[in-house]
Amino acid sequence: MKVVEIFTPRVEKLKNFLSKKELQNILILSDANIFYLTGFYGNKSGSLLLIMDDSWYLLVSLIYLEQAKKSVQIKNLNIICCKNDKFIKLTEILEDYKIRSIGIEGNNINFSDFCRLKKMLSGQGKRLIDCSGIVEKSRSVKDQSEISNIKNACKITDRVFKSIVRTGAAAVNKLSEAELSLKIEELLVKSKSEGKSFDTVVAYGKNSSMPHHFPQNIKSKDGIILMDFGCRYNNYCSDMTRTVFIGDRKKCNKFKKIYDIVLKAQIAAIENCREGITCSQLDGKARKFVDSKGFGDNFGHGLGHGVGLEVHEEPKINMESKTVLRQNMVITIEPGIYIEGFGGIRIEDMVIVGKNKCEVLYSSTKKFIVLD
Amino acid sequence: MKVVEIFTPRVEKLKNFLSKKELQNILILSDANIFYLTGFYGNKSGSLLLIMDDSWYLLVSLIYLEQAKKSVQIKNLNIICCKNDKFIKLTEILEDYKIRSIGIEGNNINFSDFCRLKKMLSGQGKRLIDCSGIVEKSRSVKDQSEISNIKNACKITDRVFKSIVRTGAAAVNKLSEAELSLKIEELLVKSKSEGKSFDTVVAYGKNSSMPHHFPQNIKSKDGIILMDFGCRYNNYCSDMTRTVFIGDRKKCNKFKKIYDIVLKAQIAAIENCREGITCSQLDGKARKFVDSKGFGDNFGHGLGHGVGLEVHEEPKINMESKTVLRQNMVITIEPGIYIEGFGGIRIEDMVIVGKNKCEVLYSSTKKFIVLD
Repeated sequence: MKVVEIFTPRVEKLKNFLSKKELQNILILSDANIFYLTGFYGNKSGSLLLIMDDSWYLLVSLIYLEQAKKSVQIKNLNIICCKNDKFIKLTEILEDYKIRSIGIEGNNINFSDFCRLKKMLSGQGKRLIDCSGIVEKSRSVKDQSEISNIKNACKITDRVFKSIVRTGAAAVNKLSEAELSLKIEELLVKSKSEGKSFDTVVAYGKNSSMPHHFPQNIKSKDGIILMDFGCRYNNYCSDMTRTVFIGDRKKCNKFKKIYDIVLKAQIAAIENCREGITCSQLDGKARKFVDSKGFGDNFGHGLGHGVGLEVHEEPKINMESKTVLRQNMVITIEPGIYIEGFGGIRIEDMVIVGKNKCEVLYSSTKKFIVLD
Repeated sequence: MKVVEIFTPRVEKLKNFLSKKELQNILILSDANIFYLTGFYGNKSGSLLLIMDDSWYLLVSLIYLEQAKKSVQIKNLNIICCKNDKFIKLTEILEDYKIRSIGIEGNNINFSDFCRLKKMLSGQGKRLIDCSGIVEKSRSVKDQSEISNIKNACKITDRVFKSIVRTGAAAVNKLSEAELSLKIEELLVKSKSEGKSFDTVVAYGKNSSMPHHFPQNIKSKDGIILMDFGCRYNNYCSDMTRTVFIGDRKKCNKFKKIYDIVLKAQIAAIENCREGITCSQLDGKARKFVDSKGFGDNFGHGLGHGVGLEVHEEPKINMESKTVLRQNMVITIEPGIYIEGFGGIRIEDMVIVGKNKCEVLYSSTKKFIVLD
């Protein structure tokens, strides 16, 4: 797929949406959305992309100018270098346009900044129209180039998990949570990814009951080793969780009952994941099973989330979301059971939604593993 | 310093500010601000802290409940577990209060969420008052416990830089940008920090002209090795940049002229850094020198920024900021010169602002180093 072919349908989709809202323009503020539309990823750069009917403007700080010039993939984009406040430059550009309304990503600008920009533009008789989530919605369905990048990120992640399992109990026993998380990140980089897609979670023993536990300098494992990690490949993310066990096999067996419930819940969701089902229905497939076993209150998060340029993106797979799954959405399926003072078990795969089923993107085993 | 003694003055300061605005309450949304006031750091947890005149409420998702219960350091805080939308629970709590105005951190909520909450509360006849930046301003002046944590983070950072220099040219030559950045992060963790405070920048050769370059799988160094990194210690950050050189000593000497300009500019700023000077004046001390040597256009960012619970926080040290430096502010001083196709050089220290001078928190050399 050529570069231009990637961007053309994205831009068309955006323009269609805007025309439905009777808008000819929009201000994009999210770094990931700017990348999706232009090829420039200025992580936390505060860049602005102003899309007008006839011309596009990318406003960047001087320190991102070289990167922007090298990475922008679309023609006729005006790259504007801003020494100071980008809103001032934006207002100057807009002065030449006789328009009354400008779309804006209200979900990607804080309230104080919104008020400041609104005031600056009111002098020109222009008002801002909240168009939250348009590009995010478009990003939720992946094209072939995106799927290819995500598959590569998942392959690397798979390989790293397998390598950790092969490392064996003796070597893992020597590592603290923080050291094992570092080991994982080292393997991700050495496998030619661009590094981790989020802060690696490694939780030993009872710490695993906290789903977002931050790895500590402790080595005592008490059975459970929960690992939640992922990498980036051409800016696209992977996300995987596996829970394995270490130590005396008989003692580890006390975790098997919970493990099997989580695994069956996960498989139930995977088997029902296809185009047409709503996110809340899919969440329900796993949740009802966990509930039926008496652990409903211990499954304290949604079933999953979309993954792409961001590790958490649309759609959210939870009890409330009425979003309907569509072909080529890429999501995680990750039920978990967390018991304070006992530990937590989570199993997470990434899948591509298909017409009649889904494709699981990992080949790593989900069997109950006690490290040898 | 006891735990209670840490939090009491922070809360007093906040209450004083609110009373000036004739408010008795405020909604805090930033994770760092919630930690500063309670001891709970739910990174990207979407937690809410509602501070009312008579009682405090911390609203967290189920998956952060255990962590919140374990880490909250102040008495009489009601920890509320939210299974679903936290704004619904917040609205229910506020229903019992006969108040008309609620302060809110407008800089820490996006415009769409603000509108949604505003609508929910308008039914109770309550309105939101933007109180952006109060806690951030309070955080900009550090207390003794914060300074102690920051100093520890800086000590670890110092040690890691020295260790990289000791590693020597032969070993560094074998590492790609991505591998050297990983090596730095490994040393940070092994030195008992909580890991990096931001994504490590390692830029070789011409790549260094992009101040936010993302480390690649390339090994060719062409003289320059720019390293910008830091760690966390008890949640407090460090941030350091050093530019060193590798390869033929004669070839490296072509960078010495630029290096000396950056270093002299940095020292000029350090010598003028004290309570009472404005941020723009301090920025000017370095910028005027760089300008006088003809490289003003190549110094494309502010002189520095505050560092604490976040690696970039108040105050911003740039050409526009009228903020006056105060004793016990902790800031970076980091001029740089970036030349496309040639490379970039930046030297960054962290300092504590004092009454009559500042204390530099690193002991790592700033001499022109060619790795042996």
